[in-house]
This record gives sequence, structure tokens and C-alpha cells, in this order.
Amino acid sequence: MKTIRQQVEVTFRYPVHFTRNLFAAENALLADALLGDALPNTGPKRVLVVVDEGVTWHHAGLTADITAYFAQREGLKLVTTPLIVTGGEVTKNAPENVLAVQQAVHAHGVDRHSYVVAVGGGALLDMAGYAAATSHRGVRLVRIPTTVLSQNDSAVGVKNGVNAFGKKNFLGTFAPPYAVFNDLDFLKTLEQRDWVGGLSEAVKVALLKDAEFFGFLEENAEALRNRDEGAMAHAVIRCAELHLEHIATSGDPFEFGSSRPLDFGHWAAHKLEALTDYNLRHGEAVAVGIALDSTYAHLAGMLPESELTRVLSLFTALGLDTFTPELETPEVIAGLNEFREHLGGELTIMLLEGVGRPLEVHELDETLIRRAVARLKEGLWTTPPKTGLEAAR
Amino acid sequence: MKTIRQQVEVTFRYPVHFTRNLFAAENALLADALLGDALPNTGPKRVLVVVDEGVTWHHAGLTADITAYFAQREGLKLVTTPLIVTGGEVTKNAPENVLAVQQAVHAHGVDRHSYVVAVGGGALLDMAGYAAATSHRGVRLVRIPTTVLSQNDSAVGVKNGVNAFGKKNFLGTFAPPYAVFNDLDFLKTLEQRDWVGGLSEAVKVALLKDAEFFGFLEENAEALRNRDEGAMAHAVIRCAELHLEHIATSGDPFEFGSSRPLDFGHWAAHKLEALTDYNLRHGEAVAVGIALDSTYAHLAGMLPESELTRVLSLFTALGLDTFTPELETPEVIAGLNEFREHLGGELTIMLLEGVGRPLEVHELDETLIRRAVARLKEGLWTTPPKTGLEAAR
Repeated sequence: MKTIRQQVEVTFRYPVHFTRNLFAAENALLADALLGDALPNTGPKRVLVVVDEGVTWHHAGLTADITAYFAQREGLKLVTTPLIVTGGEVTKNAPENVLAVQQAVHAHGVDRHSYVVAVGGGALLDMAGYAAATSHRGVRLVRIPTTVLSQNDSAVGVKNGVNAFGKKNFLGTFAPPYAVFNDLDFLKTLEQRDWVGGLSEAVKVALLKDAEFFGFLEENAEALRNRDEGAMAHAVIRCAELHLEHIATSGDPFEFGSSRPLDFGHWAAHKLEALTDYNLRHGEAVAVGIALDSTYAHLAGMLPESELTRVLSLFTALGLDTFTPELETPEVIAGLNEFREHLGGELTIMLLEGVGRPLEVHELDETLIRRAVARLKEGLWTTPPKTGLEAAR
Repeated sequence: MKTIRQQVEVTFRYPVHFTRNLFAAENALLADALLGDALPNTGPKRVLVVVDEGVTWHHAGLTADITAYFAQREGLKLVTTPLIVTGGEVTKNAPENVLAVQQAVHAHGVDRHSYVVAVGGGALLDMAGYAAATSHRGVRLVRIPTTVLSQNDSAVGVKNGVNAFGKKNFLGTFAPPYAVFNDLDFLKTLEQRDWVGGLSEAVKVALLKDAEFFGFLEENAEALRNRDEGAMAHAVIRCAELHLEHIATSGDPFEFGSSRPLDFGHWAAHKLEALTDYNLRHGEAVAVGIALDSTYAHLAGMLPESELTRVLSLFTALGLDTFTPELETPEVIAGLNEFREHLGGELTIMLLEGVGRPLEVHELDETLIRRAVARLKEGLWTTPPKTGLEAAR
């Protein structure tokens, strides 16, 4: 009889701030953002704060600081003392965490113009973000990521999620945040493995998009590994910037298609995390995944050996392993099919032709994958070859 | 240190088809839409169908027809026999329904390029839509609404939701469908109260946006009430069209602001539904809500009496009541504050200056609301006044 072709355009805008000492009394950045669109005579803006338990171990005064911060700010009202919730991957496995945040949104009258402020690592932000996005069809979410990985990648993006039915991120939505605050001071108390682990996403995005940034990481690998704050600040900002640029300009921010260029190295990484029961953390798994796909690209004749050497050597210099025994299990290859299902439709894998030169392929050869694993196990190419003879091996 | 201002643009496109006999073997409309972007060598497109139990009572052969329809279509695979789920408002109160759909998505490998096809009334579509939108961050949702109300309003829109913590639509997301199929033949078996009840949204959108359409409804009120299919087809299409136009052009499809122009008459309607334990259905409640707000607008000096008479007389001619005893309870006024919280921020209520001439206000006077309720109870103005003397009463 008739067809109407509907088109709906939605524009999401959010600032990503880089700061230090976010909850210091004199730092008005957060308060100003939350008061942004406050109207006269509508009462104070309501704020529900959710904090990653792990962060409170290293920052004993944090919840007191948060409470004090809001107490002195007119027009903002903390609806209850900050909720402390277990962080890390386990927070995404327990549906009661999502329910607790939704319940608090309900109980404290947090509406679509109020805020859920989540402070923690990527997993906690994913969980709290899912709860916020589904309450009242989305209350405003402010993300305060506390790890390298969340500051330079997940927390500046548009996704949330929790695990269900044994599948990672089975439940989730695309929901841009209201604002993001990256506080460098939270990074200082990270364990060494999380400090360097988060840099694998920086290596990834440099390989895909910015050869100059890759050069910066090579030059500053030792400083980064030795916890130089200036080098880390630059790495986090540039990595976040590249991720944000991609989301804004790729043309498919909500991933309607099959292509996920930023998932370079991630098909194996996701599987390795699960196979190790998340003892291998995301950043560590991504380092191995990138090493695998780069080695594969070399063996497939796409990536010159000299470029592969740069990739593997950078991980080594940062203190990140490029091999883990689980790579040799048959489940890794099976993970490729799960990744296909996760994408939906066609398998699409990002590989490399060189530093800063990605290339998408639609199939991987299993024999070559096994050969790449064997090479990584041998540990070749992990330091720059010294002579022409060695390089030709 | 630095601030990056991120902007993400997302374009959602979906067709809304008007057809008859959707699952007839010779009707390729649905199959063609589902095969739309199928790629060679990626296997058949997977389809999970969820059907409103109430619809199967009136269409005994429906699930067999659906199964037969997909069996004969190459490239499409029904992953399991259609799930039959209780419809009506109760489906939105039971979290196990959402879980059952998510579980089926998981168990049958429905991915982001596969489909959940939901067949039923607005409540069933809201529930299944929420489950689909949260699985894998959104699998494709095809809506096949079976009531006047869902065909002309909710199912062509961008929302889903279920009830939680005693609050209507507390859990939900904004998630445009992949496609909508309005099949006129489903309407023929509706109870009379649902046939006419759904027309209150047509009256609403005509009052807000299209005086000519309001004239059509006046002229065809008797035919509509007497189940004339041609008149109903026109009413449904025009009402859907006006809703779609509003969503596409209002500038705020995901309701980031406080203004909800399409919620004319809805603040009281939501409350009346809850107060009657949903015995008053949504369309019936909206008729009363529009009658209340129109009478209020007249008493407030905004709406001329002649225009108010047209509004109330049209409802009467369609067979819709403009008063219900629950209007006199104090909870209705309390509902105004809940509506304010639901909107977040500032109270914003749409009223009328005339047919096709809406006017937004930011407060309502409680005394005037009570006077409007009293007038509706008296039943004045429900038929056009015959003489100048009567009109002046």
C-alpha cells in the first residue's frame, strides 16, 4: 500500500577532559560540567557516585574527598554516600551489580537530567554505564576512568556492557557519555602490569593511524616503562585523541556494519582473556594478539620483516610479553569463528602492511596462524636484528 | 591540561511499510527486507520470531503461517519455532520475559546482522524491543504491530521499555527498529475498545500538527467507529506519518531536553492507567487526558469554547469516554510531579490554543485542574451546543 522511509539523525556531544587532582576543592572542572545546563528554580542537580572498590584501596581518602567536593558546591547534591562496587572483570559477571546501580537510580530519584558518576577501571565503567544507559532510557553518565586502558580507550568511547550466558559483553548498548574526566593522578598508584598493559592500545592505534606516534612510543619506551608521568600523559592523550577521531569520523560509530578497524589484534585477545580466566588482563592480551596478527601479516607476505621487528621490539621494550602458552591451544582458532559471530555477517580482520598502514582481510589461513604462534614462541624478532645476516634468518 | 570536544553523528534509517496479509506466501515484502544486505557465502540470515499470545487467540494459524513463510524463503532461517509470550501491560512487569528473549538470542546464535521479529501489541513490542536492543548491543529489531495504537504510534517510534521498581518504562533504551510492517488485517480482529482506543493518538497528533486531519477524523468518526477499513487505513497511515515526521524533524529524537510535544494529554493518562491497574487502556486514558488538558486550556483562557467542543465531541463520536472517576482522586495531581521527575528538570506540558495550534507551558494551576475535572464529570461540551444560550452556559 505505502512505504515511509524514516531517517533519524542524532548528534551526541561530550567533552573529554585531561586534568590532575579532580576532586581537589580548588578544581572546579567537574562541578562546572555538571552545573552546565542547570535551570533556575528546579532544585539542585542530583548526583549518584559509583566507585570501583579497587581504587579505594590505593586512594583511602577518595570517598571522603568526593563527599567533601560535592558538599561545598552549590547546585549539586550527592544523593547518597558513594556506592562502592567490586571492579575488574568480575563486576561484569554479576547481574546484581547492574541491579544495585539501577535500584539506586530509582530510590534516589535520579532522572534523565541527573548524573551517574562512575569512578574506576574499564570494567566498572562498562557495568555502571550499562545500568545508567538502561535506567529511564539513559540517565547522564560521567566517566572518571582510573587506568591507562580506560583513559586512553574504553572510557572515551560509546559502548558499555556486561557479560551474560558466558559471553563477554553479551548485554550492553551504544551510549555516549555525558562527559569524561581523565585524571593523571589516578594512574600513579597502578600496578606495573596495568601501567604498561594499557599501552598496548596505544601501540595498536599508532600502528593503525599514526606512524609518528609509534615513533614517540619507540623513543620513549624506556621512560614509559619506568613510569615517567610526562611521557605517559602524552601517550594517554594522543591515544584517546586517535580513538575519539576514529569514532567521530569513521562513519559507523554504532557499528552497524561488520568492519571494526579498532579491533586490530582483538580476536585472539578476547579468547586469551577467557582462556586464562582473565588472569591475562585485556592490555596484556592485546599485546599478544597484535604480535600474533603482525607476525601472521609478515608470514602472509604483507608486512616486511623490518616493520614486524619494530612492533615486537616495542612490546618487549615496554615490558609486555608477545607470547602466552594458551596461544597453542585449539580454542584460539575456534575463537576466530566466535569473533565472526560477534561481528555478525562477514569475518573482517584488520592486519598491517606497515607501521601506520592497516589492511583489512576477510579470511585467515589456519596453517599460517599456527606458524605465527610457533614463531612467537621461539621469541624471534623480539629485539632488532643487529646484522644483515641475522635479519635474513 | 586539555579538553577534547567530541561530536558523534549517528544516522538511523528504517522503512515503515503498510501492507495486508504480511505472511501470505505471495507477499515478499518482509522477506525482501530481511534479505536486503545479505552477502554471498555467509549462510542464511537468522530470524528469531516472538509472538504476542493474545494475537494467536484471534489468528489461530499465525505461527504455522510464519513457519511456512520462512520455510519457503531461501536465505532466511527461522532459528526456532516462534516464541509465544504473554502480551499486554503484564508482559512489561515480568523480567523473565526479557530474559527469555535474550536467552533465545544467545542460544540460537542471533548476531548483530540477524533479526528479532516481534509480532504483537505495543507492550509486547516494547518488551521484545528492549531485549533485542540490549543483546549484543542491539540485534536488528523488526516490529510487526497488531493494534491501532502500536501501528500509528509506538511501533513506528524509537523507544522500547519495561516496567521496574513499580515505575512504568523505568528500564529501556532509545533504539530505532530495523523495519516496521503495519498489516491492516491484524486490526480486524481487535476488540471494539482497542479499535477505537488507538484513535486517541490520531486525535492527539491531529490537534498538535494537522487541522485538516482533524477534520477528516470529525467527518469519518462514525465510519471509524463502525469499523470502516478504508477510513481506519487512512487514519493509521496519516497518524504514523505525523509521528514519524515529528521524530525526524523535531531536533531531539532521543529526548535529551525536557520538551516532549507528543506527550500532549499524557501526564494524566499515565497516572490513570496505573490507578486503574491498567484496566483503562492506554488509548482510553489518553482520550481522558486530552479532554482534561483541553478543558484546562479553555478554563485558562487559551482555547476557545467552540474548539474545545470540537475536541470533546470527536471523542464522543468515536465512542471514547472523556471522564473516568479516578480523575477525582488526589493521585492525579501528584502524578504531575512524577511527570516532572520523569522528564527530568523543568516541567513542560503541551496545551492547545486551537485545533492544530499547540502551546507549551511550564506550570499548571491545581485549582483549574480540579475545575476541569468537574466540568468533564458534568459532561458538558460533549455534543456541539445547539443554541447561543446553551453555548453560553
